[in-house]
Amino acid sequence: MSEILYVRHGRLHYFVREVLKRSRLPQAHASKVGDALVSADLAGFEGEGVRRLPYFANRISTGLINPSADVRVAHQEEATATIDGDNAMGHVVASRSMETAIGIAKTFGVSAVSARNSNDFGMASYYARYALEEQMVGIVISNSTPAMVPTYGASALVGSNPIAIAIPAAEGAPPFVLDIATTATSRHHLEEAARRGQPIPPGLALDASGEPTTDPKVALERLGLLPLGGQPETGSHKGFGLALAFEILSGILSGATTGPVTAAATDNRRDVAALGHLVIAIRLRAFGPWIKFRNAIKQMMDALKGAKAKGAPQIYYPGEAEFEIEQERRASGIPLDPQTAAELEGLSRRLDIHDAWEHLVEGRK
Amino acid sequence: MSEILYVRHGRLHYFVREVLKRSRLPQAHASKVGDALVSADLAGFEGEGVRRLPYFANRISTGLINPSADVRVAHQEEATATIDGDNAMGHVVASRSMETAIGIAKTFGVSAVSARNSNDFGMASYYARYALEEQMVGIVISNSTPAMVPTYGASALVGSNPIAIAIPAAEGAPPFVLDIATTATSRHHLEEAARRGQPIPPGLALDASGEPTTDPKVALERLGLLPLGGQPETGSHKGFGLALAFEILSGILSGATTGPVTAAATDNRRDVAALGHLVIAIRLRAFGPWIKFRNAIKQMMDALKGAKAKGAPQIYYPGEAEFEIEQERRASGIPLDPQTAAELEGLSRRLDIHDAWEHLVEGRK
Repeated sequence: MSEILYVRHGRLHYFVREVLKRSRLPQAHASKVGDALVSADLAGFEGEGVRRLPYFANRISTGLINPSADVRVAHQEEATATIDGDNAMGHVVASRSMETAIGIAKTFGVSAVSARNSNDFGMASYYARYALEEQMVGIVISNSTPAMVPTYGASALVGSNPIAIAIPAAEGAPPFVLDIATTATSRHHLEEAARRGQPIPPGLALDASGEPTTDPKVALERLGLLPLGGQPETGSHKGFGLALAFEILSGILSGATTGPVTAAATDNRRDVAALGHLVIAIRLRAFGPWIKFRNAIKQMMDALKGAKAKGAPQIYYPGEAEFEIEQERRASGIPLDPQTAAELEGLSRRLDIHDAWEHLVEGRK
Repeated sequence: MSEILYVRHGRLHYFVREVLKRSRLPQAHASKVGDALVSADLAGFEGEGVRRLPYFANRISTGLINPSADVRVAHQEEATATIDGDNAMGHVVASRSMETAIGIAKTFGVSAVSARNSNDFGMASYYARYALEEQMVGIVISNSTPAMVPTYGASALVGSNPIAIAIPAAEGAPPFVLDIATTATSRHHLEEAARRGQPIPPGLALDASGEPTTDPKVALERLGLLPLGGQPETGSHKGFGLALAFEILSGILSGATTGPVTAAATDNRRDVAALGHLVIAIRLRAFGPWIKFRNAIKQMMDALKGAKAKGAPQIYYPGEAEFEIEQERRASGIPLDPQTAAELEGLSRRLDIHDAWEHLVEGRK
């Protein structure tokens, strides 16, 4: 296959589920991870979508992720809780964390839930969006494996630690969904630029000797992403500061004794990711009438829309472009590039479930 | 005076208090604002320090800030509260908000407190730091008057909406205190560059026609700051997205019907600032033993310190440099540049309290 394969999201979910069940995940966990990965592909976050499936399947098969984990509330006190992920798939741990936070916030108006012994959870906004149905604000932060070179640092020490903030919007309008890494760019964007043979702007990444580079292939050789803000004179301490705050609030608050930063800095590489998350749910109606909130946010967004520069594209608020991509992909299918398709087919063969792959391809758009 | 005047922080606090009492603020409010302003100067945040006093005194005298405001808890539900600032000085409203949040978090482990009808509160981390004494994490966000040009926007529509995150650190080490605007730079930094006659890096600000500029004087003519991240290809949607999220969580959650964004976009300029804040307090011990947290954060910070690039300055974590500046200024005095000194002296003359100015100058270092 040398062309893009457009697949139906329902069948893609089935395929992911079959792969993960074959990898000994219980049905409920496989279904949850499948939903998280396919949601990322639907939203245009391919870097967190099904192309990550071979990576996860490999980590399960080599014992680095626990398929039969017992994800549980280790501790709860009033409006807070701590989840022990038991080294489960991060998608399962983060889902459980946000569900717990929402449940608590129904009673207390706000909740903070911390999770430890987790793994890469993919797209942070997937969990933040849970809060929307309950007319709550959902906030999700996480640490991640080192990819960011601190200002004045020699190598990648801190993750590209993301934050997602989901806020209900006016009726009929896409919800406000911010989902950003604290690095200026991502590995996925570097890979895309390398594939297209295009240079990247300065201020995004460093080469192996720690010098800025505009060649994405060079940047990928020893992944060293710059913080959001780029260089010190353009505010890189802000991106680095946010990443470090999220590292502490995700990795240390949850009760992990050492996190990825310590492991990377001391060159004491640990094979188990041992990531942490912090999720916060805030019930809007604890602060005032829902209708008033909804009207004010509509008024603000309308004002913003009306203020675009002449000749410029629309002013988008976070989540709006992703909403449009999702509508389009639900109708026309999720694109799988040839490399991803080949890797997924190969995975299905190794796991002896090639019929699941055939089912996916038969349903192509 | 053409030289820098180094004044004692205690006497500077006395001076600010006298000015504000003369402006009809009650003693307790005057003292609180004085502490907030002097703390900003001590930390090296001059842009939020006493140089802002003439601006505030002017707004009080013209009725745009209410000196005899009744700042009160308008609504409380379990772990949340809403403060009505009654158009008081923002420093007073934000202090009350964080004090309320800390009180609630002692019971519930976490608290979210929203404030409306407030004003510019200066340095966000001043309030976040309240949480440290109680072994809590303090988070403060705010909206502010428009200064940021949205990606694809024509003019400044969103504030440079800041976030501060204060986290207790290891014993004897400076606390982790992040305090950043969501713009790539600040008005204060442009003014400093203009004063020194230096160009600014590209990617920070726009000129009056909406084109990028490296001339700080041109940038100041019609203040148009770019979001953190600079341009779209270097991640400006991240800075803009954070600013917009903070706008909603500060301005709309608190029950304000329209905020600065709506006013600016519809050219319906309001003279009363009508700002909002959101503060969150998280009790560390609700998640695990304090000693474990403290040891883990020390281990992480030590690892980070040990990983600096050869020949590079130290890797600083947020709050560390400010802590050093504060120690130095407590000992050697707070520097007042000639323009600020002249403005403060003029203010004391207009208010007929020149003796307070003389008291300050007599105690110079």
